[in-house]
This record gives sequence, structure tokens and C-alpha cells, in this order.
Amino acid sequence: MNKFKIFNDPIYGFIHIPSELIFDIIEHPYFQRLRRISQMGLSYYVYPGAHHTRFEHALGAMHLMEKVVEVLRRKKIDISKTEEEALLVAILLHDIGHGPFSHTLEHSIVSDIRHEEISLRFMQELNTLFDGKLNLAIEMFKGEYPRKFFSLLISSQLDIDRLDYLKRDSFYTGVTEGNINVDRIISMLNVVDDRIVVEAKGIYSIEKFIVARRLMYWMVYLHKTGLVADHLLVKIFERAQALFRHNELECSSPGLTYLLTRPHASFTHETLVQFATIDDVDVIMAIKEWTKSEDHVLATLCKALLGRKFPKIRISNEPFDQAYLNELKAKYSDAQQFIFQGEITHRAYNAKKQPIEILYKNGMIKELSSSSEHLNLLTLTQPVVKYFVTSPKE
Amino acid sequence: MNKFKIFNDPIYGFIHIPSELIFDIIEHPYFQRLRRISQMGLSYYVYPGAHHTRFEHALGAMHLMEKVVEVLRRKKIDISKTEEEALLVAILLHDIGHGPFSHTLEHSIVSDIRHEEISLRFMQELNTLFDGKLNLAIEMFKGEYPRKFFSLLISSQLDIDRLDYLKRDSFYTGVTEGNINVDRIISMLNVVDDRIVVEAKGIYSIEKFIVARRLMYWMVYLHKTGLVADHLLVKIFERAQALFRHNELECSSPGLTYLLTRPHASFTHETLVQFATIDDVDVIMAIKEWTKSEDHVLATLCKALLGRKFPKIRISNEPFDQAYLNELKAKYSDAQQFIFQGEITHRAYNAKKQPIEILYKNGMIKELSSSSEHLNLLTLTQPVVKYFVTSPKE
Amino acid sequence: MNKFKIFNDPIYGFIHIPSELIFDIIEHPYFQRLRRISQMGLSYYVYPGAHHTRFEHALGAMHLMEKVVEVLRRKKIDISKTEEEALLVAILLHDIGHGPFSHTLEHSIVSDIRHEEISLRFMQELNTLFDGKLNLAIEMFKGEYPRKFFSLLISSQLDIDRLDYLKRDSFYTGVTEGNINVDRIISMLNVVDDRIVVEAKGIYSIEKFIVARRLMYWMVYLHKTGLVADHLLVKIFERAQALFRHNELECSSPGLTYLLTRPHASFTHETLVQFATIDDVDVIMAIKEWTKSEDHVLATLCKALLGRKFPKIRISNEPFDQAYLNELKAKYSDAQQFIFQGEITHRAYNAKKQPIEILYKNGMIKELSSSSEHLNLLTLTQPVVKYFVTSPKE
Amino acid sequence: MNKFKIFNDPIYGFIHIPSELIFDIIEHPYFQRLRRISQMGLSYYVYPGAHHTRFEHALGAMHLMEKVVEVLRRKKIDISKTEEEALLVAILLHDIGHGPFSHTLEHSIVSDIRHEEISLRFMQELNTLFDGKLNLAIEMFKGEYPRKFFSLLISSQLDIDRLDYLKRDSFYTGVTEGNINVDRIISMLNVVDDRIVVEAKGIYSIEKFIVARRLMYWMVYLHKTGLVADHLLVKIFERAQALFRHNELECSSPGLTYLLTRPHASFTHETLVQFATIDDVDVIMAIKEWTKSEDHVLATLCKALLGRKFPKIRISNEPFDQAYLNELKAKYSDAQQFIFQGEITHRAYNAKKQPIEILYKNGMIKELSSSSEHLNLLTLTQPVVKYFVTSPKE
Repeated sequence: MNKFKIFNDPIYGFIHIPSELIFDIIEHPYFQRLRRISQMGLSYYVYPGAHHTRFEHALGAMHLMEKVVEVLRRKKIDISKTEEEALLVAILLHDIGHGPFSHTLEHSIVSDIRHEEISLRFMQELNTLFDGKLNLAIEMFKGEYPRKFFSLLISSQLDIDRLDYLKRDSFYTGVTEGNINVDRIISMLNVVDDRIVVEAKGIYSIEKFIVARRLMYWMVYLHKTGLVADHLLVKIFERAQALFRHNELECSSPGLTYLLTRPHASFTHETLVQFATIDDVDVIMAIKEWTKSEDHVLATLCKALLGRKFPKIRISNEPFDQAYLNELKAKYSDAQQFIFQGEITHRAYNAKKQPIEILYKNGMIKELSSSSEHLNLLTLTQPVVKYFVTSPKE
Repeated sequence: MNKFKIFNDPIYGFIHIPSELIFDIIEHPYFQRLRRISQMGLSYYVYPGAHHTRFEHALGAMHLMEKVVEVLRRKKIDISKTEEEALLVAILLHDIGHGPFSHTLEHSIVSDIRHEEISLRFMQELNTLFDGKLNLAIEMFKGEYPRKFFSLLISSQLDIDRLDYLKRDSFYTGVTEGNINVDRIISMLNVVDDRIVVEAKGIYSIEKFIVARRLMYWMVYLHKTGLVADHLLVKIFERAQALFRHNELECSSPGLTYLLTRPHASFTHETLVQFATIDDVDVIMAIKEWTKSEDHVLATLCKALLGRKFPKIRISNEPFDQAYLNELKAKYSDAQQFIFQGEITHRAYNAKKQPIEILYKNGMIKELSSSSEHLNLLTLTQPVVKYFVTSPKE
Repeated sequence: MNKFKIFNDPIYGFIHIPSELIFDIIEHPYFQRLRRISQMGLSYYVYPGAHHTRFEHALGAMHLMEKVVEVLRRKKIDISKTEEEALLVAILLHDIGHGPFSHTLEHSIVSDIRHEEISLRFMQELNTLFDGKLNLAIEMFKGEYPRKFFSLLISSQLDIDRLDYLKRDSFYTGVTEGNINVDRIISMLNVVDDRIVVEAKGIYSIEKFIVARRLMYWMVYLHKTGLVADHLLVKIFERAQALFRHNELECSSPGLTYLLTRPHASFTHETLVQFATIDDVDVIMAIKEWTKSEDHVLATLCKALLGRKFPKIRISNEPFDQAYLNELKAKYSDAQQFIFQGEITHRAYNAKKQPIEILYKNGMIKELSSSSEHLNLLTLTQPVVKYFVTSPKE
Repeated sequence: MNKFKIFNDPIYGFIHIPSELIFDIIEHPYFQRLRRISQMGLSYYVYPGAHHTRFEHALGAMHLMEKVVEVLRRKKIDISKTEEEALLVAILLHDIGHGPFSHTLEHSIVSDIRHEEISLRFMQELNTLFDGKLNLAIEMFKGEYPRKFFSLLISSQLDIDRLDYLKRDSFYTGVTEGNINVDRIISMLNVVDDRIVVEAKGIYSIEKFIVARRLMYWMVYLHKTGLVADHLLVKIFERAQALFRHNELECSSPGLTYLLTRPHASFTHETLVQFATIDDVDVIMAIKEWTKSEDHVLATLCKALLGRKFPKIRISNEPFDQAYLNELKAKYSDAQQFIFQGEITHRAYNAKKQPIEILYKNGMIKELSSSSEHLNLLTLTQPVVKYFVTSPKE
């Protein structure tokens, strides 16, 4: 059987599957399931083209990582065949722990565990199935491989994950400002003392990458309509969980039922198996069913989501005062479920945690925002916080 | 309320909603439902980026139609405001009758009725809701409006539907050869004697459009893996219907249950209401449930589809002889459900039915393939037929 | 004669010529001459694709301006047909005063006059030819038309000139980071109190525009190799002028000869006529001739330019000290002509001079960099200065 | 010195220079001269963006050839490092023999010799300079290397030259219909019995390639306005040569003077040296000078070209009869120079000469147009001939 398949990617063109092991991982139902998990949660309610999935993102990130390996080898960084395959497997699987609607429901279906941890659990299961062939990939993913730069390529402030998702999300949303020059950034990467550095002549591309990411956050990921949709979905699951606890709700998805009735149980092998059966389809189907729930609150929330009748949202740079919130609650006393508040925060760049480092021609290495010409980035190291409150649509 | 919304389209950039009526139609659940109906059936199993929906296609086609109106007006073709809005409504709704997975299941869920007819039924329902404001659009859609060219823009061999879907499907699949120059084609359109004609200097773009469409058929729409996936889905529904008839199957989607239990019933208002509740989600959820069906045939078909374990396919320019088929059936006597055959046919261009007509500088109008320089297109007026047969994956 | 021509633009697709007057202006030799004037000076020595001309830029800017008019009219800003045509003429001609290699030789062929002033002179000549039909365009160009916003669209920190050149230069150089979302920016423009403002939800696109422009400056316009090429060209003309003054040099271009022998003469009608005869071709031809000049300095400079044997360049954030320069001069005593120094400066955004103003939903208008979330732009209001010195290639 | 430069290409992104030898060839003035030779003659008079040069095309073709080598190696075709470099050098230099305005003046400045022959002469000169390092490249270029497929990649009906120029010319003209999927075509190439074949699943991409090329010919390369411009340029040189022969004309370009005064001399080393000094600049400068020629015919032709006042053109599928031509000549007796006629011919695909061959899954190889499904291509194997005649603009 031919295991050297090619995928057609609308962004990069042809993506080659580089090895048999990787072919087999992609074929596995755990991975195929990503075909039914939306990359950007409910953002398609705002950007109708954003129906791409974690499946494509994972393949894209793997493809970029191959290019990184090629660039580093050309710069005489020694990377063995074994290391290369492990690196590709690790990036391919870095997001396999995502559940339905990716980040949106990350803490609503299974609690107390982050998707990275679930990814690790999936990798361990696959490792058993594939006779330990994922050992090195897991080591890199956990940051335990001695050559640290491999782990930084998988997860840091300039990791390959970010390069792919920014480019991909920009492509599918049509927000062309988020498009970054992935080729140039990759071609500027280098390794010094086991750290990933960027050669100085790439500094403006990095600046642009940070600004593009910031723009994508405020214009896309935290777009106010998308925000309402996401929170509505979260509210639906909060309510559903409460009802499940009292046996006052059902849903036809066995996997979802299993998970919703054990919200804080520890994440066992059985949890994983059940988790692997659910995807966006189970969630939307449940919401369709719950539009007919006897629980009025749940039913109205579900109808609002499906019919795209979202609550209104107000966003402010200051927290809302209690008086205003009380007023809202009094005004809409019969539709409290549509009043929710929260804060959103985003930091364009964190100079402290796994900072981006610039390699100058004279061999000096400096943290990005300390460059006198890039003081503007220093400003962007401060987190921006905004507050929102919603109220029923009139 | 601001009804002059803008959509971000990854292909055309900004799409403006041109009127309040159109805004209200788009907001209606009948239309919003298209957000959950895949434009290209199961093609995403072959082209991972092809997750776009009928929702985006409908908006895109409307957007192109606005450009057509602009071009024709510049050429002094008189089009009133009322006609313009009707034309836009008609193209916006031309595909609203599509059910889950568009063409793939077109005859599997409701029989004896084509999606165009269902589109008309939806338009009539909406017309009632909007106090007759869709009268003219319906007239155009049915081809009954005296100025025939409006209907030809909605449906013909060079209609705006085709322009959008070729461009869009090419974009999302990454099959860049299918990309056509929509701007040039539209700018070459004109109206003579109530017929749509193409000005002669656009003839090579038209030739290229036909070749691109042919290429998209054989490389994408009729791609052998996509073909298997589509037929597997059809087989699943054939089996499911048979079981439903004998009350040996259930599914948690009320709409799907309603429709599958009344396959040949006439399409009443109630049918429409039920039909409007279902989308891709109901179908995939049903398939997930049926993987656990007691019916072995159905269960294995469903597992094969979900896990992407498709049967093998052989394609031939000649029909397969009975001996070969018997042999296959004997060999796989315990997996007959994976043996199915059929034929696929495609005609790149039909010179007889609503032919494409070319307007020469001297005022002469000729059918496209009769041009001495475009005899190659004459060859393409012949339908191409291929035969396929599948057998279990070993 | 058909004056409603269409141009094919690789960036925007079709560009329609909107009126007979504009058609006639484009046909005029003064405008046709822009076909032979490189948009980006000698940048093609660094970015081989950058061979585009002022001709394309002028058409592109006019095309964008039409879209601005469309957007503003949709927002109920009243713009008459006459104002529209004047605005289009003004932007079409805003750069017609550029001479060979645009900015590079701006002060080397005719001194004491900026290209904007020469543009005005061309417009006045054309106004005479076209019987005063350019009166209003000239008024707008000079900033004397009472409705000030027209002039701001032609020249300000967010003018249509910049939108086109950034997008265009990014396209032809392949520096995709410079690509801006012109459609979104234009769709966010509005007019309040005769000033151009940007609606608040466009603020991230504006931030991105400023960062993209800054990136284009440092990576493209001030790229160190391009810088050397440009300064080499300037040095050639300095030397040539000196030799011309002493009748020790000739060149076969009559126009160039006329201008080089009268460097500080006032810019009369005759100057304009001569200026209109020269373009990049005259300059390169002169340089070819001068490679055989008896003046050793001139000949070596010309050979270096043509053969792309550029001097080395060092760039520093601090001025070079005199000792270092003396050392260089001593070391290369026989090739002093390749030692030159200078400074380059760029300010990403000037908050004081024709600032960019943001219109918030509550009607408030604030200068861009005063927004608390965009303090990073405040940093970018400081000019960045760098120093360079060149020395012979070894 | 770092010889591993990167070029930024607007189409392919980064182009790496693969070896020192290739770096040195690119640096040589013979090659740098291609920066001043327009790829598409005077097509920029029709498509304003088409200012790209032979320099970019040569680099682009080399870049694609590297991808071909990569694909073939993946398919286990053995290609040594030495063969690879020779192949890259050969494609890089395949067009170095082009003179000013490429094909347009191919037979007007030096006669009796085709550009391929001049390319070979340049390669031989460079071979001497580089101590025989181009031996193998020259062998491949001449078709004398035993492994024939290398030569077919350099020159045949599906050579890499065509892949690059179609994609590139389509990009810069904005005629997007000419865009071909170079990646897919290359990925489908294979070698059988020392012949280049295309794997069967690439057949529609090949069909599309042929149709795209045909479209580019009729819409771009043979566009009627471009045709007039090209012929005007040829007429100018015919007239100039006649005048030169009688010492009645001069021009300030020494190289051009040398060549025009020895039109049929054999092509010696000295011819090459002179030829290497001229480019588009010499030609346009000469035309500028000749606008003031005492020869009225030459002067008016030159003015027409520079000012874009082209003669009218009529195109017909039949030859024009003599009576009509006599009539034209009588009518415009004082402007005979603007009356010229000719024929244009193009064959989309020639099934006889170096045909494109398809490799089927069963190992069978068939010539492209013999496939029953691609009979339309058979029609395209016939040359199309058209006739034109021009007359003065009124």
C-alpha cells in the first residue's frame, strides 16, 4: 500500500506525508476525528469562510516544520532523521487533545485539564499502539529532550503552531491583514546554544508578526459577535451540566452524556475513549435537541445560538459598575440567561516568558523588545484587558 | 437596526448586503441553515480545505450578480431597481432547497423531487412571510419573466451560479487550475434580444471556463475517492430507508426520522418544515449512531465512512462485464455491501441546450462551438461516460 | 472613438477609465512618459520584480479613489460629479512631476524644486491645453478647495497615494509583509467637519498600515543595497554636473544636457518642455556613455552602477567618528569616489502633522496615537535616524 | 564572500542560488544585462504591468528546475550533483542570447541567427571564462548528452521554460486565465526510457496548460495592439538599417551602430562583445533620437511608437485581397509607412514534434492527443493562421 500520499492544501499547495509512521498516525480515527473539529470555534458566525478544521491546521504545521528542518540543516545545524520524524510527529499531534469547537468548550466538557495535557494523553495511547515509536516525539513535546530548541519550535512565542494558525485563519476569514510571511520568518531562524533565535535582518518581519497576531486577536478571535457566540455556547453547557447533575436532561450523544455526567472525574483511559468519540457534530446535535428542552433557560439559549439571535454586547475598557448590571438585570428580569459578563485579555508579546531573541551579525543575542528601534513592542508587552456585558436582543 | 451589513469573503473581499429585504431573508432560519450544509458533499475527505458551505456560495453568487447588473447598465441595458432586487433575491435563493451534503443525498432523503423544485417551495414560503415581496424573484427563477435574460443569468450554461462555484471550489480545494477569471467573463457579458451573449473578445476566457469546469469535474467533483465516499453515503441511506420501512431502525434526529419514514410522500408544507430542520449535522450524527446498529450491513457501512476506510474503486471507460462482477461478489461474499457499481457522465458543454452565444463586432451572433477556431469545443460537447465498481478494502 | 477603455492591472484586475477628459489626459505624451519612469528608483537591483512604473501607480491610485467616492457616497457624504472628476484627475496627476528614477534623482537633475511643484506645473500646462477643465483639480491639489477633505485624500498621512504604493510595491517586490488591506481601510473612511476620519473598528487595520509602511521603509525603500545604488546614481550626477559646468562632459540626450547645464535656473515653460522629454532611458544611456569618460572618477562610478559592483556599506545607529572616516579615506586613497556617507531617517507616523483621526461610535474623534490601546504607535512617532558610510568593494 | 544569496521573487517567494558557479554566472555582466531586456517586448503598451525582464524569467526557470530534480529523485531517478548543476546552468542561460525586446527584434538587429544560437555562443564564452565548468551544461543544451531527458526539460513542448514564462507573464499582465498549476505539473513528471512523461492523473492539468498557453497567445502575445507596436518597432529598424546602409543615419549607441551597419555579417566574437553592450535602453534612446531624423518616414514611425499613436489594425481569418490593399495605399498615399501586413500563426500543440507523453498506471505510454477523452486536443494540433493589415490612425 502506498503510504506516501499528497494532500492538497489551499495555502501551501502540496503537502507530502513524509513517512510511514506519520501516514499511519494520520489514518488513525483519533486523528481523523480532527476533520470534524472546527479550528476557530464559532467564528464562522462572523467570518463565513472560517470552516476549516484542526485536521488541516495539524497538517499545515507539520509541513512548515519540514521547511524549518531544511533551513536549519542548510545552516549546518545537525538534525538526525530520527529527530526530524519525532519533531514532525510532535507538531502533528500538538493539538490532538482539542475537543469540539476547540478553545471555546475547552473547560466546559471536561474540566480541570488543558488541551495540551489531553494531547499528551492521546500521544501516549498512540505510542502504545505504535510500539514506542512516539517516545522521542513525546519527550520533545514535554520539553524534556536535552536539545531544547526542538521543544521551542513546538511551543513558544514564535512556534510553528502560531505561524500556521495565523496564516490559515487569516486566509479563511479573509482578514488579509493577519497574513504573515511565513517563508521569510522561517528562513531567518537559527539555533544558538540550543535556543531558537531570529537573524537580525528578519526583525521587521517579527515585528509585523506580533502586530498581525494582535490584530487577529482583536478583530477575529475576540470579535465581539464571535465572543457572544462563544459565551452563549459556554452558558449552554454550564446550564446543561447543572441539569445533567440532577438528571433533568438527556442527549443522544453517548460520549457527551458520559462526559457531562462526570465533569470533575479524573481523566482515565475510559475518559479518553469517550472523548475521542465526540466532535462538533455531537455538540450541535445536542443543542438542536435542547431547543425543545423543558428547561426554559436552556431552550432559549439553544434557540438563540442556532438561529443566530445573539444577545447584544457592550465592551468597555473599564469594568462595569454594579449599579449598571443591577439595572440590566432588573430590566430583563425574565431573560437573565442572556445577561453575562466577563473580561477578555490579550498580551501581544511577553518579553519574559520564552522571549523572542534576535541574533545580530556580530554574534550578540538580544531579546526582541529591548532593541532601541523596537521600543514600540515594549508597549505591547503589557496585557490589554477589556470588559464586556451582554443583554437580551430587543 | 442597521441592516446594511458587510460580510468578509475570502475570495471577493467585502460583500455588502444591498437591501433590507435581502438582509431579512439572510437572517431567516431557512437561510441560516445553509451555514450547516456543505457545498461539496464529502469532498473534504479528498480535499481537506473543502469545508465551505452553501451559505457562502449563495452570498458569493449574489455579489457577482451585482457586478453583472453594473456591467450591463454601463452598456445601457435598462434594469430597474425592482428588477435588480428580484434578480439578487433569486440568485441568493437558487440553492436554498439543498439538503444535507447538497447533491450527494439529493435523492436519498426526499425522493421524486429535485433541489430546484424545493428551492422554489422555500421561496414561496418566504414570499408569504414577506408579503409578496418575492413575486418577481419567483417569476425570474421559474423562467416566466418576459425579459428572459434575467432567468438565463440565474440558470444556463454560463450562469452566475457556475461562475461562483467554480471559483469557490477551486479556491477551497487548492485545485488552482479551476480558477476562472470571473471579472473578465462578467465584463464581456451583454444582452441582445433578451438573450445573454458574450462579446467576441471574451471567447478565450469562455473556452478556458469550459475547460476549467471539465477539469474540476474529473479532478474534484468526480474524483474517485470522493466518488466512493459519496456512494457510501448513498448506500447508507438506502439501507437505512429499508430498515426504517420495517421499523428496524431509529435515529435521534426528528426531522430525518420524519423524512426517512415517508420517502415517496408528496412534498407538503409539513415536509418543508421538517426538511428545514435538518442539515449535515443530523446526517453525521445518525451515522455515528448507526455504527452501533444491529444490522451488520448498515453498521459496517457507517464505520467505513466515519473512519475513512473506503472500499477500493476501479474506473474504466468500458462497462464491467458480468463475469467480473460475479467474481467480485463471490470473492467477497461476506462484504457485499461494499460492492457497488455505477456510471459517471459529464458533458463539458452542450451546444444545444441554452448554448453560449458569442457576439461579434459586426453584430453577428454565433453559438460558441460553431466558431471555426473553437472546434475543439465541439469535441467537448460529447458526453464522457465512465464506469466504476467498488470492492472491499483488503 | 471609444474613450472608455479598460486597463488590466495585476493587482486590482480591471481599471475603467471613468471619463473622456481622463482618457485624453492619459493619452497625452506628458502622461505616457510615466511608462518609462521606474516607481522605485533602482530597487530592482535588490528586488528583481520591482520594474513597475509611475504610470501604473497613477492609474491604481485613481482606481482606489473611485472606490473612496463610492464608500463616502454610501455614507451620505455629498460629492458632485464635477468634484468626483476633479478628485480623480488630481490623484491621477499627483506624481506627474516625477523625473527619471523618481525620488532618487529628484534633486540631481533639476534643483531647488520638489516633484510636487513640478506636478503642479504639468497640471497647469494641461489645464491650458484642456481649456480650464483642470481648474477644480488644481484647486484640490493645492489644498485651496474649501471642502478640505478632498485635499486630504490626495495628500496626508493616510492618503490614497500611500495606499496604492504600499500595496503595489509590496506586490512587485514580493515583500508580502507590506501588503495592506486597502479595501478595509477605504471602507472605514468617513468625513466629519470636512476632515477625513477612520471609523473606530478600523483601528487595527490602521495600526497594521503604519507598521507595514515602516517595514517597507526599512526592508525595501531604505534597503542597504538599494541605498548604495541610489547614492551611487546621485554621485554620478553630482560629478556629471560639475564636469558639465566646465564643459568637460557631454551626453547624447538633449533634454538631459539642457537640464544639467542649467542646474539652478528657474523652472520655466522651456524647462518643463525639456524635462518632459527625459526618462529612465536617457539616464541609463548617459551612464553607458560615461563609462568611457576620460574622467576616471565618473567612469568608475558608472561602471560600478551598470555592472552592479556596488561599494560596501556600513550602517550604524550612531554617527561615524571622523577618525574612522579618515582611516577609510587613507586606506582607499585611489578610490575616494566610492566613499560617501549620509544619514537616513524615517518616521513611521507623525501625530502632529495631518494626524490620522479615529471616529468612535459615540461621535468622539481622537488622534490615533492618543488611544490608550495604541500607545505603541506613540513610540513610532519618533523619527529613527541611521548613519551609513560606504567604501570600495574589495 | 557569501555566494549563497537569496532572491525575492513575487511569484515563488525565495529563490536560493544553489552553487558558487551559478552565483558567479549571475554576477557576470552578460547575465546582469538581462535586467534591461524586457521579457515581453512592447506588451507593456497593452498590459501596463508587464515590465518584467529576462533576468527574472531565467532565475524563475532555474528555481522550477530545482523542484523538478527534487521530484524526480523522490521517484528514484538517479541524478548526480554534477548533472543537477549542469541542468540548472543550462536552463539559467537558455535565453541569454536574447537581445533588446526579446522576440520582437530577434531578426532586426542581427540577422540570420536565432536567439538559441546566440545563447549557445554566450555559454561558450562563459565556459572559457570559467575553465570548462559549463561543458556538461552546453552538452545538455545542445541535446547531445546521452541521457536525453535532461535536454527535454530544457526544450520541448512541456519544458520548464514554458512553465515559468506562462505563469510569470500571466502574473504580470493580470491575465489570470493563463495561470497554470506549475506545482502539480512538476509533481506529475517522471522519466521512462530517457523520455519525460506525465503521469496519467496529471492529464487534465496538461490539457489546461495547453489551453492556457493558447489563450495567452491570442489574448496577450498576439494581442492586436501589441502586434501593431511590435511591427512598428520592426518597421523602424528596417528603415533604419536601409538608411544606415547609405550612411544617412546615426545613433548614439556604439553597439547598435556596429550591429546595424553589418546586418548580414557572420556572428564573430566581436559581434558578441558588441551585442552584449546593448539592451532595451539603446533601442528606445535611438528611437528618441530618430524622431528628429530628416527622413520623414523614420521620424513619423518613431513618433508614433513613443507617443503610442499606433496605426489601426484589421485582423481576418482570410488573406486580404490585393484590391483592398491597393485601395488603402491609394487612400493614404502620404503615409505608406503605416500600412503593413502580415500573418500570425499559432499551434497550441504539435503531436508530432517532441510530443507530450502520458504514462498510464499499467505502464503504457501514449501521446497526449491520442487519448480518446482528449480528442479536443487533436483539434488544437492544427495551426491557426490569421492575417492582418494596418493603416494610419485617423
